[in-house]
Amino acid sequence: MNELIKARLPAGFRDYDASEMLSRLRMLEKIRAVYEKFGFDPLDTPDVEILETLVGEESGNLIYELTKIRGHVPIGGELQRIASRFDLTVPLARYYAANASKLPKPFKRWQMGRVRRGEKPQAGRYCEFMQCDIDTVGSSSMLADAEIIWVMYETLRSLGVERFLIKVNNRKILNGLSGLCGFPQELTTDVLRLLDKIERHGVETIIDELTASVKQTIKRDDLSRMSSEDRIKYNETKYGLGLSSSAGEKIQKFIAINGDTDNVLSQLRDLAKGNEQICAGADELELIAQYLKASDVPSEAWCVDLSVARGLGYYTGPVFETILLDLPSIGSVFSGGRYDGLVSRFLEYSVPATGASIGVDRLFEALRQMDQIEVRPTATDVFVTVLDPDRINDYLALVTKLRQSGLRTSIHMAEERAFKSQLAYAVKQQIPVVIICGSNEFEAGTVTIKNMNARSQQTVPQDSFIREVRTIIDIKSQV
Amino acid sequence: MNELIKARLPAGFRDYDASEMLSRLRMLEKIRAVYEKFGFDPLDTPDVEILETLVGEESGNLIYELTKIRGHVPIGGELQRIASRFDLTVPLARYYAANASKLPKPFKRWQMGRVRRGEKPQAGRYCEFMQCDIDTVGSSSMLADAEIIWVMYETLRSLGVERFLIKVNNRKILNGLSGLCGFPQELTTDVLRLLDKIERHGVETIIDELTASVKQTIKRDDLSRMSSEDRIKYNETKYGLGLSSSAGEKIQKFIAINGDTDNVLSQLRDLAKGNEQICAGADELELIAQYLKASDVPSEAWCVDLSVARGLGYYTGPVFETILLDLPSIGSVFSGGRYDGLVSRFLEYSVPATGASIGVDRLFEALRQMDQIEVRPTATDVFVTVLDPDRINDYLALVTKLRQSGLRTSIHMAEERAFKSQLAYAVKQQIPVVIICGSNEFEAGTVTIKNMNARSQQTVPQDSFIREVRTIIDIKSQV
Repeated sequence: MNELIKARLPAGFRDYDASEMLSRLRMLEKIRAVYEKFGFDPLDTPDVEILETLVGEESGNLIYELTKIRGHVPIGGELQRIASRFDLTVPLARYYAANASKLPKPFKRWQMGRVRRGEKPQAGRYCEFMQCDIDTVGSSSMLADAEIIWVMYETLRSLGVERFLIKVNNRKILNGLSGLCGFPQELTTDVLRLLDKIERHGVETIIDELTASVKQTIKRDDLSRMSSEDRIKYNETKYGLGLSSSAGEKIQKFIAINGDTDNVLSQLRDLAKGNEQICAGADELELIAQYLKASDVPSEAWCVDLSVARGLGYYTGPVFETILLDLPSIGSVFSGGRYDGLVSRFLEYSVPATGASIGVDRLFEALRQMDQIEVRPTATDVFVTVLDPDRINDYLALVTKLRQSGLRTSIHMAEERAFKSQLAYAVKQQIPVVIICGSNEFEAGTVTIKNMNARSQQTVPQDSFIREVRTIIDIKSQV
Repeated sequence: MNELIKARLPAGFRDYDASEMLSRLRMLEKIRAVYEKFGFDPLDTPDVEILETLVGEESGNLIYELTKIRGHVPIGGELQRIASRFDLTVPLARYYAANASKLPKPFKRWQMGRVRRGEKPQAGRYCEFMQCDIDTVGSSSMLADAEIIWVMYETLRSLGVERFLIKVNNRKILNGLSGLCGFPQELTTDVLRLLDKIERHGVETIIDELTASVKQTIKRDDLSRMSSEDRIKYNETKYGLGLSSSAGEKIQKFIAINGDTDNVLSQLRDLAKGNEQICAGADELELIAQYLKASDVPSEAWCVDLSVARGLGYYTGPVFETILLDLPSIGSVFSGGRYDGLVSRFLEYSVPATGASIGVDRLFEALRQMDQIEVRPTATDVFVTVLDPDRINDYLALVTKLRQSGLRTSIHMAEERAFKSQLAYAVKQQIPVVIICGSNEFEAGTVTIKNMNARSQQTVPQDSFIREVRTIIDIKSQV
């Protein structure tokens, strides 16, 4: 006898049981239906790509490499290092570049699949999770970006989410900030990182930090030669990005911009007169606003929010994120943006692209917290009990009829045969209809049907029992 | 500018484009519908398991380990080695063992997912492929095995396959062969491997090989001391498993057994009188035959075939495989069996289980070869051309109406604006309906609808255009 192996999952990975899967599959079907309604078609790429395809866009720290335990086998004399994808966008760029000549232009695809990131697992954050992406590759038109926002709106509505806000910004505006405010372009990332903290820390603190002087690195020798007062002062002084006070003032004006889309854009244009990047970004947002007005996306469902930056480095134009108004703390559930440079990692020319990705696990968890997920342990409609094992063929004949009529049916086959335990199985599984037949029924040509929700029971002739079961199931599914 | 990265896939991995995915998704939906009709519920487990969970059942040669490029990070002080699953059965056993107390008995689950095996890629054989499994864990009843065969039958029928044969055998019969024929139990695998070749090499050759003497390893020194004639004779002599001639005769009688199920079982019982294992195996097959007779599986759809062994080592009872009668060369498309020992790798007690797995890629390829796959490059119903870009809001209003009515709709947004190229896009994508509107139509409040299959065109009032488009799409989908 071999030693027992402990049945457990690796840290950061999880199972999805029947009740969760049934809800998730319903959710994925609804998402897919919306994606297809907007003319997106499915694509599937492998879970595994050549390592070189993946590194660069994302820090190598996150990436899982796949190796054969007995060592790599070179293929065609070449040793290919392979790794698990960490998103669906980089594989899309690789796919598009490899097949550009035969793909329709634009290429509109949806893709659902799991991705892996070797981050430290935390409560609710896993190393493997599902993404559902839509992307339009090969169109620089703002119609494509507006359509993505339109899909985001429709998708959330189709999932029964009513209170959400899609926040839209443009990377061109953020990239123009250094020119507008007069700070070095290379500080943009640091500035945005600080602006991102305004809601938590308040405007004043952040402006202070932007304009406070840069911390001088003082050599240990010099530090030890300081007077103790100077040393304390050095340690207590706040240091910042060292922006000029006029830059600080401009930034303060920038972040004070608010109101509806028209208002935000006109204030922004006033502030940024002559700044080409910012004006180009504003023009794009105005087009998006125009297109969305012509669609059925209500103006309350989205807004221009100049503080939205989105983490990923590859965005080049409009960016989108979505917060649930009743659960803002979980962060964005549906985000994306335009990335006109990603495909050109593989090609001599650049290919415009825009898209968005839904965080299925995060959204599912949110819907569950908001009690919008119906939980049922099984999809089975009917359970056939076996009272008289010698009559098994008669029971199977009933099962055959039920299944032929499309009813999802199980028959008792557990080791434990007591009727009580057969019924307990149906109760635990919340199966709505139980068939109970003994010799009496078979001899009389009848079937006893138990309606588990109504706690009622009836005995009907065999030739009408399917109809009766159907009635119970149909009433249930209409509730 | 960074150096261009070559856009390519790792050897042994593949993409699935829109037309293939649309067909595959239809196929997977049909499979799922049958699985659920039989009372199986979905389960999902991660692509990744602890290495120790996986090794042992399958040679470590096949397994891909996942490592972080920057090295493993110990979690909770423990260094977990993780690896990609190579099937869905071992993860099921792990899941069942970890959750046994809360799972219904029996536990009937279906699972679809990709698995990875680091084999040398060949034409049509990939390192990553999809499996669709059904399993019943926790029932030793032959009802469970008969139900699996029933599902296999229904699944293939629902996919439009008419000519197939499900071959059923029992490992107990094969394991009893050594006792029946009088050869050492440990030779069983070698004997079965040879019996598997009968169809190609003929009965006589195989019986010869079974009974030929075992090759004696002769030391190089002794070999060089032989006369050259003896050495040639030594090299030319056929060597085999060294079974006695009476064992050879018994095996010959065993493999000569054929006919319908009743016939095969009665011949087998005559031959194996008193052999407990074989008789137990025959009893189980008889029960399966009885149960299938009471279902709607016709007797022509399946047979007892004593030569079926199935490769995997974990089978303990009935085993199943399915060949397509019009394409037998591609091998079994739907196979499985009973494995009462697998879960006990993780538990103090043994848990009976049986199931089957459909090779989706292989079956899909077969259906394609048999012209049973409908290929369409897109699911999109309607394409809206843009003749007058200044009227974009009017076009978007049409798109809104089309999508609101559930029609899958795309609007022109490519860089190339010529009407000819817009139409070429719809032709290439085989989109059945194209909307063509210019200023004339918008001013007259009409819409021009082009039926691409009928090559006809009509101009209708705006308030009836959805109805007209619906008519074209509905007629098309009924064909």
